[in-house]
This record gives sequence, structure tokens and C-alpha cells, in this order.
Amino acid sequence: MVNMVFAKKVVLAVGAHPDDIELGSGGTIYKAVQAGAQVIALYMTRGGKITDTNVRMNESTKAMNILGVKEIHFENFPDTEIPESFEAINCLEQYALKYQPDIVLTHSINDIHQDHRKVGWLTMSAFRNVPKILAFETPRVRPAAFLPTYFVNIDGCIEKKWEALKCHVSQNEKRYLAYESTVNLASFRGSQVGVAAAEAFEIVKYVEG
Amino acid sequence: MVNMVFAKKVVLAVGAHPDDIELGSGGTIYKAVQAGAQVIALYMTRGGKITDTNVRMNESTKAMNILGVKEIHFENFPDTEIPESFEAINCLEQYALKYQPDIVLTHSINDIHQDHRKVGWLTMSAFRNVPKILAFETPRVRPAAFLPTYFVNIDGCIEKKWEALKCHVSQNEKRYLAYESTVNLASFRGSQVGVAAAEAFEIVKYVEG
Amino acid sequence: MVNMVFAKKVVLAVGAHPDDIELGSGGTIYKAVQAGAQVIALYMTRGGKITDTNVRMNESTKAMNILGVKEIHFENFPDTEIPESFEAINCLEQYALKYQPDIVLTHSINDIHQDHRKVGWLTMSAFRNVPKILAFETPRVRPAAFLPTYFVNIDGCIEKKWEALKCHVSQNEKRYLAYESTVNLASFRGSQVGVAAAEAFEIVKYVEG
Amino acid sequence: MVNMVFAKKVVLAVGAHPDDIELGSGGTIYKAVQAGAQVIALYMTRGGKITDTNVRMNESTKAMNILGVKEIHFENFPDTEIPESFEAINCLEQYALKYQPDIVLTHSINDIHQDHRKVGWLTMSAFRNVPKILAFETPRVRPAAFLPTYFVNIDGCIEKKWEALKCHVSQNEKRYLAYESTVNLASFRGSQVGVAAAEAFEIVKYVEG
Amino acid sequence: MVNMVFAKKVVLAVGAHPDDIELGSGGTIYKAVQAGAQVIALYMTRGGKITDTNVRMNESTKAMNILGVKEIHFENFPDTEIPESFEAINCLEQYALKYQPDIVLTHSINDIHQDHRKVGWLTMSAFRNVPKILAFETPRVRPAAFLPTYFVNIDGCIEKKWEALKCHVSQNEKRYLAYESTVNLASFRGSQVGVAAAEAFEIVKYVEG
Amino acid sequence: MVNMVFAKKVVLAVGAHPDDIELGSGGTIYKAVQAGAQVIALYMTRGGKITDTNVRMNESTKAMNILGVKEIHFENFPDTEIPESFEAINCLEQYALKYQPDIVLTHSINDIHQDHRKVGWLTMSAFRNVPKILAFETPRVRPAAFLPTYFVNIDGCIEKKWEALKCHVSQNEKRYLAYESTVNLASFRGSQVGVAAAEAFEIVKYVEG
Repeated sequence: MVNMVFAKKVVLAVGAHPDDIELGSGGTIYKAVQAGAQVIALYMTRGGKITDTNVRMNESTKAMNILGVKEIHFENFPDTEIPESFEAINCLEQYALKYQPDIVLTHSINDIHQDHRKVGWLTMSAFRNVPKILAFETPRVRPAAFLPTYFVNIDGCIEKKWEALKCHVSQNEKRYLAYESTVNLASFRGSQVGVAAAEAFEIVKYVEG
Repeated sequence: MVNMVFAKKVVLAVGAHPDDIELGSGGTIYKAVQAGAQVIALYMTRGGKITDTNVRMNESTKAMNILGVKEIHFENFPDTEIPESFEAINCLEQYALKYQPDIVLTHSINDIHQDHRKVGWLTMSAFRNVPKILAFETPRVRPAAFLPTYFVNIDGCIEKKWEALKCHVSQNEKRYLAYESTVNLASFRGSQVGVAAAEAFEIVKYVEG
Repeated sequence: MVNMVFAKKVVLAVGAHPDDIELGSGGTIYKAVQAGAQVIALYMTRGGKITDTNVRMNESTKAMNILGVKEIHFENFPDTEIPESFEAINCLEQYALKYQPDIVLTHSINDIHQDHRKVGWLTMSAFRNVPKILAFETPRVRPAAFLPTYFVNIDGCIEKKWEALKCHVSQNEKRYLAYESTVNLASFRGSQVGVAAAEAFEIVKYVEG
Repeated sequence: MVNMVFAKKVVLAVGAHPDDIELGSGGTIYKAVQAGAQVIALYMTRGGKITDTNVRMNESTKAMNILGVKEIHFENFPDTEIPESFEAINCLEQYALKYQPDIVLTHSINDIHQDHRKVGWLTMSAFRNVPKILAFETPRVRPAAFLPTYFVNIDGCIEKKWEALKCHVSQNEKRYLAYESTVNLASFRGSQVGVAAAEAFEIVKYVEG
Repeated sequence: MVNMVFAKKVVLAVGAHPDDIELGSGGTIYKAVQAGAQVIALYMTRGGKITDTNVRMNESTKAMNILGVKEIHFENFPDTEIPESFEAINCLEQYALKYQPDIVLTHSINDIHQDHRKVGWLTMSAFRNVPKILAFETPRVRPAAFLPTYFVNIDGCIEKKWEALKCHVSQNEKRYLAYESTVNLASFRGSQVGVAAAEAFEIVKYVEG
Repeated sequence: MVNMVFAKKVVLAVGAHPDDIELGSGGTIYKAVQAGAQVIALYMTRGGKITDTNVRMNESTKAMNILGVKEIHFENFPDTEIPESFEAINCLEQYALKYQPDIVLTHSINDIHQDHRKVGWLTMSAFRNVPKILAFETPRVRPAAFLPTYFVNIDGCIEKKWEALKCHVSQNEKRYLAYESTVNLASFRGSQVGVAAAEAFEIVKYVEG
């Protein structure tokens, strides 16, 4: 595992709402941490549209801790209305300057959720000097528009991913947070590339070597 | 169920090898039969490259019978080398003339397996006057090139599909014929469109009404 | 005709401006009504940028009545500047709750007109739990970006569509509202799939059965 | 008209069967001839699958003459089975050497007809040094796969195109050879770009200046 | 050169910031001017986010003068936050009315820079009646999303393009303004289509004749 | 450099003709060898259509030796007519069995040269169990169809790549083998992702970890 590309790298994961990062890349993040990566999680909103923001932040903090992530940031852009503004880009650029990430994990610009799409575009602008940007899969990507070509083998990490996801007690009526959904998604994506379990990503930018 | 678009229609399913049709559209076919459709299965080869052709034909016959299909045809084009020839198109056109299908189910032209791709192109030519042509998903479609927009709800049909798939005793080392794979695929595709289980299709041509 | 997929369904058509729905799906709507569908029309603006809003609303009301539609709603978002806001999504979600539509007809996200694109994205978010969403063709879709795979046979409905379109007296200098344009479009789209007349749609989401 | 890009150029049109060139680019060719272009027509087969080859060749010769084309060649590759062979590429390269075309008009690789696709690929290889290659529209291109971005204004040329098409007496049961189809197609493509009539092309390669 | 499509035409180039037009189409513009075109340059912002706007405007004015362009306009939309507003579309429409351009050169909607994308969408709306719209390449287009099919041969114009680019003294730390970058880009794009040097464009709309 | 993904891996490069591998991935291969990879080169033809096959094989052997590759294989499929046959797939599968490659480098299926496309399809079938398959860029890929998302930083390797390319004495009239072309391509691809020099690849399949 120590040979994977994430080993000893600085990985910055950017999600729109608490739970997006875990859902899209929880297995990959866990594996990266195990391989010695420094992983930073950044949520652009605190998810306050329906649930209390403190509840959401606590849940994601617990979830990320389970995955081994200790640096967790919550910005305060408005839930459901993240702007495609200079302020938002600038905010992300500060993280670029501070952490100098090798790899950024983020949303796809082909997601149905407007906040997800916006975060996808914002990260593309803000992290234009980062060598690797990967867009993860959420339950809201469109089947015929999310075109993954990069898969991370997460064999052996599903239970851990699920342990993280179930921290989101306030969201537990959501089908995609169910144990079966976690297994199905990982198994399906794995079957597409010949491994037991995988997470799928679109490549936004990828420089190797 | 009787209200579905397949109800009372003539449905012709064309696969390259015994097991392709069941894998790609077994749930849909079962549901169509239940809704009163006349379903005809046509395999372009007898799958003789590795296994005995009689074994393969018997297995597919049993499988299709379980799904309720009684008309099953096996052409004898060479396994792994189905030609993109006039003869092959003409062969398919005879089925068009004989059965006058309302709906054709077939392979995607974006499949990795050369026989699958060829069958996809051949059916597009031969059934150019059929109002509805749908391309099913096989374990060999490329993740970023198979772009499904049409999903058939197969809730309640997975056990039947699996019952059919397990008839392929000679192929039982193949992972994608495992029970778990059948469930995972159906659940994942269902989760993408908000139902418990689904089969996904690319639209080749679709005229409604 | 009673066998078409729209029969007895609840169909919600969402357009940016008075005349968009009729132009993009007038034939389909007329046919749906004939097949017993309950069709609701919703315009997101009242089209007041150039013409008086009452005039525009009256024209669309007449047009939709001719097609057999009795429930017609006009929201009041600013013409030419429909926002991609939570308010707009929420507005649409109320219609989802009230009518529980089976099918939504709307704009394509690949339209040149900014309001059309926005409505396309908004409906994708707001109606994420609706099983069927189809994006219609307007005179502003880009030829190489509007990729229709779903066609509704509107043979016999062109005169009715034209009767509806000509209610838009205030817009009658627009070429695409001319009788010839209506016939040309329907005939061309029909010729692509082997029927006398058709309307073409992109599939946003489609679950059958 | 003399200012159009085809003026005084050498234009080589390559079709699979007699009638393909006229159908896909008859208006453009007529206009090019009027603007002083030297136009050469090359048919890769003589269309003998169903009709007598002499009949087909005579019809296309008449049709092209009406459009003002005097150099017409018929190769003899097998109708419905044009090979993707070195021989076929080499055959085309001889025309490249002989005529040194500035512009090549040919089939789209996204056509349903196997011969059309093959000719599309063959011309791409054989004319790799020609600065401009455009793929025309046939009744067999797939609606969501033919993506035209280049339109030639053929206003005033439709009657001439139709005069050419009606030379194909042996094919006159084909809907797409009807007068109405000719008008509908030209009007529709024109309406997409704001002119009265147009022919649509995909760009294979285009160097200006 | 006088035979090129730009000869004697009215060409309007629209860029987001001072330097965008020169970078994306400096060679083409120079060649167009040489061929007798009337070229107008329009910058939507004055580029004041980092550098003084007067400096930026002076630099672009010098640069465009070197290319032979005398009509240069600077709007004052906010740098990094060009709005997708009616005001912005209306502003562009005034240029359409005033100059009646035959050809518009602009940004691609697939650019990473938010201002570039916005300008791409705005021009598509505002210049919907212009027969030819081409989107140029900037250092921020995404490699797998910028899909050029139209190339302008700029052989012999690279030195002039470079002479223009080096006017941007305030930006001279930017790699893409280096001489080598100018040569590399032109040579690479030329090599793709068989000429010594070229600029690459996506076609937004193109009507010939 | 030892940290790159190719380090200590088994890399199999498959080209249609002598010189294809060096052109498309010479820098990457050199870097991989430096990082301890075992690189095997396989040419499907001996390039005998125009030049003597021994000359071509000697040139490629020398070129690959310069890059540090010692295992070089030449199959004998017909130059310009590589078949899409079972025999060809089977031939490649023997290499899969023998070398168990971690990474396969090959042609894009979007190349204009028929042999290149065929090799692209063949490798996709034959190496379906290999975790990483990347398609390199040749001078014949189509600008708008080759969509690279994966870039290998080859800074410091261009001279070595050029040293290898100039072994192809028999082909030295080809522009793309010139020193300038090598530099231009690497610099351009590098500039797209922020490094001094790069080679660009399409991802066919990629499993990490």
C-alpha cells in the first residue's frame, strides 16, 4: 500500500457540505492516510439549510477522524447557494498557499447539485497550479455525464468508510448513506476495473512524475 | 407492470454469445414477458471458442426459459470473430422481416469485446426501421464510454435474473456471473435513478407514440 | 395512441418564457392530453422584457388551451435573468410536491439562451425524484450540442401545434413561429427516425417500468 | 457568391454509392461550381447490390451534370462491403496525387451505413495532407452522433439540388429523395444558423489561410 | 493571403482581459488586417485585479496597434467577476448593432478561468445573428475539453504576434507570454494540420457562403 | 524520480510500427527505466510497406536501447493492414501472460492511421486484466478527438528522446521526427499542465493502489 501515488503526499479534499468528502472519497482518504499522506478536509458550507450546523460539523469531524484525518476546516459559504465568486476562489487559493497540496479531491462539474458543480468549477480555478485534481462521485452525479477513468482500489477499506459514514446520524434517512449502498457502489466500481472494491474519479488534471 | 412500454410488444434481443442477453437485460426481459411481451432471443455465435457449443446453447436455452422466453435462436458466426459483413446484416434483416420487432435490445458499440461492438453496429444497420433500439450493459463496457440514459426498473426481478444466470454452469468461474455481482449492478444502477434495482441502457434509437 | 407512455400520466412542462413550451413540445403535449394525461404548464417568467406581460400570458394561455391544457402557471422570475438560486429551485420543488409529476418536460442545458440553460439546470435539481425528465428543442439549441435520442411521433398533430403557436401574435415576426418552420422541424425530426413528424428530446433522466 | 471559400478551388467529393454525394452536398457543389470551383465526384461503388450498376451510374452522371460537375469517377468496390483496406486507401491517394484537392467532401464516420462509415475513415487516412475535409449529412447519420458545426448557405440552390436528386429514378421510392425532404432538410439546417437554406457538415479537418 | 475568409470582412474580437485577444488570436488578427479586414478589439474588463488598469489598457492598445488594429474598446466589467447578466449581453449587442460583424472571435466556454467562460457564453447569446463565431485558445483552456477543429495558418506571422505580446510588460513573468511559448504553441498547432504555424479555434457557429 | 508510478513496475509498450512507441512515449519510457521499471517494447509490424523491415527493426532497436530498453519484440502483422482478428488479440495475450505487465502504453483508438486505431482496440481487448492502460499521442491523432487527461513530466528527458528518434535515419524526411517537433510537442504539452516538458496520454483504464 505504501507504494500508492498518495503515499507521503499532501492531499486536500474539498467538499460542498459535511458528508460529501466521505461519500465520494472516504475509502481513498483512509488508504492515503495509511500510506502516510497528510490529508486535509475542507467543507465549503456547514450544511445548515435543514440541520443545525454544529451537528453537521460534529458529524463530519467524527467521520474524518475515523478515516485518520485530523485537519478539518469548515468555511461558511451559504448552503445551497455557494457563489461562483472571486471571494470563493480566493478563499480556496489561501489553502493552496498554506498547504501546497500535491493532490486535490473535489466535486465533478457534472453533478446535479448546484453547490457541487460550483465547487467543481471553483477548485479548477483556484488549484490550477496543483499537479493532480480528481473529481469524486456523489449520489447526484448524472449517470451519463460522470465519466470516470481513474479508479482507486479500496479493497479492505469499505468497513472503515462505512464506519465514517454512519457518523452522519442526522442524515440517516438518506438511502446513499446506508451500508448496502456503500458496499454496492464500491463493488460495482471495483467490478468495472477488476478489483474487489474501488472509488471512481474523473480526472480534472493529472501530472505524473 | 402491465403499463410498461414493453407490454404486449414484440421484443427481439440480440447478443453475441450465450449469456450476453441474460447478463445485460435479464431483468428487463423477465419483466417484459410478465407484461405480455413476445420476446425472441437471438445469439449470433454459439460461444464455441472455449466451451462446447452444445453446452453453451443448452445453458442459454435454460436461462431464457426461466425468464419466460420460448423463441431462442442461435446463429453460427465465428466466436471472437463476428464479421461486420453484408451476410451478417442480411441475417439480422431476416429476423426483422419475420418478427417485425417493436423493440430491439442489443450490445453497445462502446464495448471492449470486439464481438459485442460488431453486434452493436450490425443491429444498428439491420434494424434501422425498428422504432426502439436499446443497448444493454455488459461487464466489458468501458466505464467512461457507456453512457446510459434509459433505465428499466427491475425491482422484484433480481432473484429471477440470478436464477437464469446460474444456468451458465460452464462459465461459473466468471465473477460477473456471481450472485453478488448481479445484486450490486442492479442496486447501483437503481440508486442512480431512485429505484431499488434497475438495468441501464444506452439509447440507439427511440420513437415513442 | 392510448398506449403511449404519456397516457394517464401527470406531465409537468416547464418553460422559461411564454411560447417556449409550445415551441418545444406542443405536439407531444397535445398527444399526451389526447391520451388522457394531466398536463400542467409552468412558465418561469412572464416574458416582459420587450412585450407586455399580460399580452404574453394571454397568448400562452390561449395556446395551451388549444392543446388541451387547462392548468397553466406563470411565475415571475425576471425575464432574461432567471437566477440559479435556491429560491428558484424551491419554487419548482413546490410544484413537484403538489403535482407529483411522472414526466417533466423542460429546456436543455445546451441552449444558447441563458434563461433556457438556467431552467434546464434548475429542473434537474428540483425534480431529481421524478422518474422521467426530457429536454425539448428550441430555436436556440446549438446544432452540435443538442443531442436528441428520444423522439415523440406527432404525426397528425402539426396543424394543432401550429394553431397554438399562432396565438403568439405579439411575437409573429419571429421566423421560428412561422407555419413553414413548424412543418420543417417536425418533418425533419420525423425523417431522422422514420415517421412523418416528430419532436426531438434529450433525455435528462428516464426510468421505465 | 464568388467570395465563398470554394471559389476557384479544387473540390473532390467522395461518396460510397451513386446518390450519396448529391444528397449530402448537392447544393454546396452547385454553388461551388457557380463560384468557379473545379469539382470532381468519386463514387467508391457502383451501387449494384439491388439495382443494375449501369442504371445507377447513369443516374448519378446525369445528376452531377445538372449540378455542373463534369469529372465523375466510379470505382468498383463491393456495394455494402467497402473494405477498410490498404488497396482502398491507395486508390483514394491516387486521386489526391492527380487532383491535389483543396477541399474534400465525404461521409461521416458516425453514419449507420457501414459503407458510409468506412468511406469516412478511408478519406481521413488518404487525404491527410488536404487542408479541408468536411463530412456531409446523409439520411443515415445518427441524430445524436452527427454534430455539424459548419454550414453552407445554399439559399437559391434547392430547386437545382432537387433537379439533380430526381435523376435517381431507380431509387424513387426512397422518402429522402422526395422533394419535401430536400426542402425540409435545407430549411431546417438553415433555420439553425439563420439563413433560408443550408447544408450541414462536420469538420474533419480545416485549415484556413 | 487576400483570398482568406477574413479578407475585407468585419472582425470583432472579444476578450475578457487585456492580453487575451492577442494571446488567442494575435496571428489570425494580424493576417486578417493584412488581408483587408476591419478588426475591432473589445475587452470586457480593464484587468485591474492586480495591475493598474491604465497600464493594462496601454499595453493592449500598443499590442493591438502592432497587429494593425485601430479600433480598441475597453468595457469596465469587474475583473474576475464578469457577470452573466442581461446588462453584459446588452452591452455586447450594441457592438453587434454598431459594427455588424461578419466574424466574432471570443473565448471558449471550456476555459478554466471563470471570466473566460462567461465571455464565451455571453458572446454566444449576444452575437446569435452573426454568421461566424470562433473560440480561441488561451493558456487556461482544459486540454481534454478544448476541441479545436478550425485552424488558421499563421505562417510568417509569429514574430509579429510575439512583438505584440511583449508589449505586456506588466505581465512579463507569465510563462505563456514568453517567446518560446508563442513559438511552441504555433508550431504545435501547425504540426497538427500540416502547416508551419497555426492558431486553433473551436467553432461556435459557422455559416459559409 | 524514484517515486513515480512507473518505478519498479513492468511496463509493456505496444506500437504499430517501428518508431511509434518512441514518438508517443519515448520520454516516459526513458524516465520509467531510470526509475527502475522493466520496460518491454512490442511492435506489431516491421514497417515494411515502404522501407526494408531489417532497416526499420534495427533503427527501433537502437532507439529503444538509447532509452534503456533491452527487451524488444517485433511481430509480423502486415504493415498498413493490421487485422482486428482473434489471432492478433491472442498474440497480445501471450505477452500479457508472459510479462504480467502493470502498465501498458499503446495507441489511441482515435488515431487517423488505421493500424494505430486497430492496435488501440486490440490492446483494450487483450490487456483487459491489466490495471493501467494509457494511449499515447502520435502525429496522426485527430486534434479534436485525442483528449489527454494524463501527463507525464519528462523535464530533462527531451534530449534523450531526440537521441532515440534520430536513430530512424530511413524516416528522416518526416517532419515530426525533427528536433524542433520533439521540443515543441513536449513544451506545449508541458505548458498545458504547468511543467517544462510533458508527454500526454488518454486513459484507457487506470486503477491506482
